[in-house]
Amino acid sequence: MMALVRAGSAWPIAASRCASRLLHVPVERDPSFAQLLDKDVSFFEGVLGRSGVITDPDALEPFNRDWQKKYFGHSKVALRPKTTEQVAELLSYCSSRRLAVVPQGGNTGLVGGSVPLYDEVVISTAAMNQIIEFDDVSGTLVAQAGCVLQALDEAVGQRGYMMPLDLGAKGSCHIGGNVSTNAGGLRLLRYGSLHGSVLGLQVVLPEPLMAGNTAGGSSPDAGGRILDLLRTLRKDNTGYDLKQLFIGAEGTLGLITAVAIQCAPRPPSVQVALLACPSFQAVTDTLRAARQRLGEVLSAVEFLDASCSVLACEQLEGVRNPLVAAEGEQGAAAVTHGSEALSPFYMLVETHGSNQEHDLQKMEQFLEAVMAEGCVSDGTLAASEAQARAIWRLREGVPEALARKGAVYKYDVSLPTGVMYDMVTALRGRLEAAGFGSGAGVQVVGYGHIGDGNLHLNVSAPRYDTALLDLIEPYVYEFVARHRGSISAEHGIGLMKAAALPYSKSALAIELMRRIKGVVDPHGIMNPYKVLPRG
Amino acid sequence: MMALVRAGSAWPIAASRCASRLLHVPVERDPSFAQLLDKDVSFFEGVLGRSGVITDPDALEPFNRDWQKKYFGHSKVALRPKTTEQVAELLSYCSSRRLAVVPQGGNTGLVGGSVPLYDEVVISTAAMNQIIEFDDVSGTLVAQAGCVLQALDEAVGQRGYMMPLDLGAKGSCHIGGNVSTNAGGLRLLRYGSLHGSVLGLQVVLPEPLMAGNTAGGSSPDAGGRILDLLRTLRKDNTGYDLKQLFIGAEGTLGLITAVAIQCAPRPPSVQVALLACPSFQAVTDTLRAARQRLGEVLSAVEFLDASCSVLACEQLEGVRNPLVAAEGEQGAAAVTHGSEALSPFYMLVETHGSNQEHDLQKMEQFLEAVMAEGCVSDGTLAASEAQARAIWRLREGVPEALARKGAVYKYDVSLPTGVMYDMVTALRGRLEAAGFGSGAGVQVVGYGHIGDGNLHLNVSAPRYDTALLDLIEPYVYEFVARHRGSISAEHGIGLMKAAALPYSKSALAIELMRRIKGVVDPHGIMNPYKVLPRG
Repeated sequence: MMALVRAGSAWPIAASRCASRLLHVPVERDPSFAQLLDKDVSFFEGVLGRSGVITDPDALEPFNRDWQKKYFGHSKVALRPKTTEQVAELLSYCSSRRLAVVPQGGNTGLVGGSVPLYDEVVISTAAMNQIIEFDDVSGTLVAQAGCVLQALDEAVGQRGYMMPLDLGAKGSCHIGGNVSTNAGGLRLLRYGSLHGSVLGLQVVLPEPLMAGNTAGGSSPDAGGRILDLLRTLRKDNTGYDLKQLFIGAEGTLGLITAVAIQCAPRPPSVQVALLACPSFQAVTDTLRAARQRLGEVLSAVEFLDASCSVLACEQLEGVRNPLVAAEGEQGAAAVTHGSEALSPFYMLVETHGSNQEHDLQKMEQFLEAVMAEGCVSDGTLAASEAQARAIWRLREGVPEALARKGAVYKYDVSLPTGVMYDMVTALRGRLEAAGFGSGAGVQVVGYGHIGDGNLHLNVSAPRYDTALLDLIEPYVYEFVARHRGSISAEHGIGLMKAAALPYSKSALAIELMRRIKGVVDPHGIMNPYKVLPRG
Repeated sequence: MMALVRAGSAWPIAASRCASRLLHVPVERDPSFAQLLDKDVSFFEGVLGRSGVITDPDALEPFNRDWQKKYFGHSKVALRPKTTEQVAELLSYCSSRRLAVVPQGGNTGLVGGSVPLYDEVVISTAAMNQIIEFDDVSGTLVAQAGCVLQALDEAVGQRGYMMPLDLGAKGSCHIGGNVSTNAGGLRLLRYGSLHGSVLGLQVVLPEPLMAGNTAGGSSPDAGGRILDLLRTLRKDNTGYDLKQLFIGAEGTLGLITAVAIQCAPRPPSVQVALLACPSFQAVTDTLRAARQRLGEVLSAVEFLDASCSVLACEQLEGVRNPLVAAEGEQGAAAVTHGSEALSPFYMLVETHGSNQEHDLQKMEQFLEAVMAEGCVSDGTLAASEAQARAIWRLREGVPEALARKGAVYKYDVSLPTGVMYDMVTALRGRLEAAGFGSGAGVQVVGYGHIGDGNLHLNVSAPRYDTALLDLIEPYVYEFVARHRGSISAEHGIGLMKAAALPYSKSALAIELMRRIKGVVDPHGIMNPYKVLPRG
């Protein structure tokens, strides 16, 4: 079975190119995995009831593809357990039958990590959406893996807290998926990574590492495969911090069923400013000034280039760049056509604080300083929540605008701030020199979380094109490797970058990953073909 | 060889009791390890030169015991490599010869983790004390493992930054040891744990996981055992986050040779207040108010009970409690004899901020609120750096004061804040009922990092006593387990708590730790007898 390269397939060109050419995604199904039989479906129905087992092809379709419609699988069954014990029963069965498994959360990933490649069994966390407990003295939340991030944020918001992470997909991504992919997002700068804020996990392993039943559970070997690390302690130095292994493992080591996480106090004072910068040097100078002058209240520093601003305003209803309109009083037309009023770069600077008066004073001093120094040529401070949302919408709308425009090659890299935009201009020059300039409808744009050294480099094109892709890859990965950056800052590896992992990790590191995978998943049934390059 | 229980040994009673009775420390040397031969010393001298190899018994003494003089080993050689490549050569040799190894940093631990038990080879990081690089735009520091924490803090302090951790042993602990033990300390509340702030590690593994030479290095298999994860990126989602495994592994998986860490901007404004609280409920109410009103500037919340205050003032030159003196004007006598001026509890509340005026205003509002609510009966805000240091000295002096007074049983636990002091009173009642009250010279005291849920429970006694220890253990561990706390919040497991690990970790979790240990250290030469309970 040649899922990726068969003729007449529904695969878009980009994916098949990636698969067959650069990324060496296996084009052969691993024959050690069993095929799904009727008796398997019967077993699943016995555990979950009929409503928890999806086999209808139309109903399966959303489980078999990602939201970008780049990755398509051929799973014949999707399972919706409600409890950890059910997950343990399912994995116990799949392991004994050698059925490969894909854990799936909100399926909002960008690297094909949560979509089957062949006929893997999908285990969705969607029905595991209960909050287990929230302690409003300590701000610790314990929730099932399938809780939607935004729903959790709203729930803890009513108790004066906020989730320590925020990202564009918040309305549909699951907390279990966030942890499995070590989601970064918009406010890592302030609230840190999930490696710091996740306090505990409950994970079901594919194999019982121990004989006998050492804990409760309906499955005879549940005690041997339900790894209970679900504590809410800030400090706990009792042996190896095993939960860390599952944070960012993208479901290849086990299935996260519950998460304990440290929430942050919800700030009574929030300020959002949009700034125009005349150069990328000015962007980095502004970042430095923000760190210094906004100090402990700084919560996000984002940037987008002029092209991103134009794209968002062009493609998305109701989105505008208030600085462009204010400068030229030319309204949408100026934005759309890229008037001279556009600045090369825009920055979003946000503060979270406990005292509005103090925060405003700090922000004003910061703005005065960066404008006096010439780092910022124009700026606006949101005067209402609606204005703040509108500024965020400009920044958060960029990926959506790109997706609407046509084909997009998306890269998510960490680089030293000083060379970050060099990568965009270098790639743009390279493509232009080869005839893939704006005349050919190709745009190379950059935006992202500059406060964390995280660039989203996107190439927009009228359609996917092999010659274009050949110019982009491995050039992008080589550039990143040369500057000791990361080929995946926050999106993960998934299917898309498994073969490119050596650009960021040594052979020894990859070998150690493989050995660890071998310990917990000796038959390799958990999310196969993902993360680790082929051996 | 019966190192722990032999007659006439230099072991203090407590350690031998722990070893033979409760903690099941192995009393037999693992016979699979080789004994040191002259040829081994010659090899080490060939790699390090004579000055890097210590065999003189007097010179070996400080490598063979901890600073508390609780744990004593019998190592015949201590090695002081200067480079990662030398460490790789040493571990390669020790592995091939099956010589057991104890990595040792500043040897400031409290659980016997960095001291040999028998004749293990000590590899000290003391000569690996070079700063590799510091980036003062991003605040990322890369340093060799043997750099002393305080020296690093001073170095980055000159560039406007501070280390993200601080602890009592800062003047002698090594950054490599801090990371290996996942040191917590005084400001975790604000700057987070090392799982969040460590950006990269370089680790030498005991075994070459890969054949052949895939990287540089003078040792033929250096590429197979030097694990280079030394990046300075805030975001890097490229496979399993392997460095996390070594954070808190206490040298049982490999030897950390270099650390990349995110420093925090050094705050221009620091405030330190000492508060007197009439009850433990008032302490937790004050903590909650501090979180709410000091918000983003809060950097530490510590507490100590009245006995701790008396002990520190009694035992340590120049230490006084400004609130006791100010209340009664009775000076040292009042403190020493526990006058009515003493409050049951004292709290240290610290802020780190970027704007002195703002911070002072927040602090004043906080103090007014907690005094109005009756949570705080008296308080003082340091008006100078000297006063701030004096307040910190009162809190940080407690362990030293306890050590001077006599025998101390030390416990370091995480508990929900609400029941934290119940543990102290429960144990005090239990001991008093059994005749171990103040009349017998026994004191049960509590202090610690209340902002992180971390209690230091100490029992001071005239001498170590089996009957007393029998009343304390496993009672303490059982209390902690009942409240789903941690038997080691920050001190680690080491030798002292290896057998007690099951009070905090499930059998499955421990089995998974063992399997991971088996992957990287199949012969078990790295820091044997520590962390993991016997199989």
